[in-house]
Amino acid sequence: MLLLITYDVNTETPEGRRRLRRVAKACVDCGQRVQNSVFECVVDAAQSRALRHRLEQIIDPERDSLRFYNLGNRYQNKVEHIGAKPGFDVTEPLIF
Amino acid sequence: MLLLITYDVNTETPEGRRRLRRVAKACVDCGQRVQNSVFECVVDAAQSRALRHRLEQIIDPERDSLRFYNLGNRYQNKVEHIGAKPGFDVTEPLIF
Repeated sequence: MLLLITYDVNTETPEGRRRLRRVAKACVDCGQRVQNSVFECVVDAAQSRALRHRLEQIIDPERDSLRFYNLGNRYQNKVEHIGAKPGFDVTEPLIF
Repeated sequence: MLLLITYDVNTETPEGRRRLRRVAKACVDCGQRVQNSVFECVVDAAQSRALRHRLEQIIDPERDSLRFYNLGNRYQNKVEHIGAKPGFDVTEPLIF
């Protein structure tokens, strides 16, 4: 299934930027970064649970918002894009 | 159907912040802001087309990224939230 993950974090602080980097790394391990804080992961149910658990360990639940949307298995015609393409290199080195 | 809209814009510029405010206003006219640049709108097909058209007029396609996800009509169990709840007052006055 396609699991869409949106992450709202204050990136004006070094801690927030660090959490975003860590969330991005966890997500791109099983998908792609389509916007600065939006990720699309193709996962099965077990991978989905593992990813959620991993992300819960990273975020600050008092400050950050994390949302998951299950687009199912037939997601190809449910997604549309307008405007600039993402410029994120998912293979870029991440410094923690 | 639930139409999820994610908007990636550089808010370090006044123009970017202005476009985000205008996108937010268009989206909350038919839904709610669940993260800083993530919106959930419950619309029919005609409203969806009208909203997309309106948003296309607002964004800068050279710089901004806009994505639409169609969650269908049975979306209630497809959405999950972790962490802080959004603090956006969708009725706040918007200054253009």
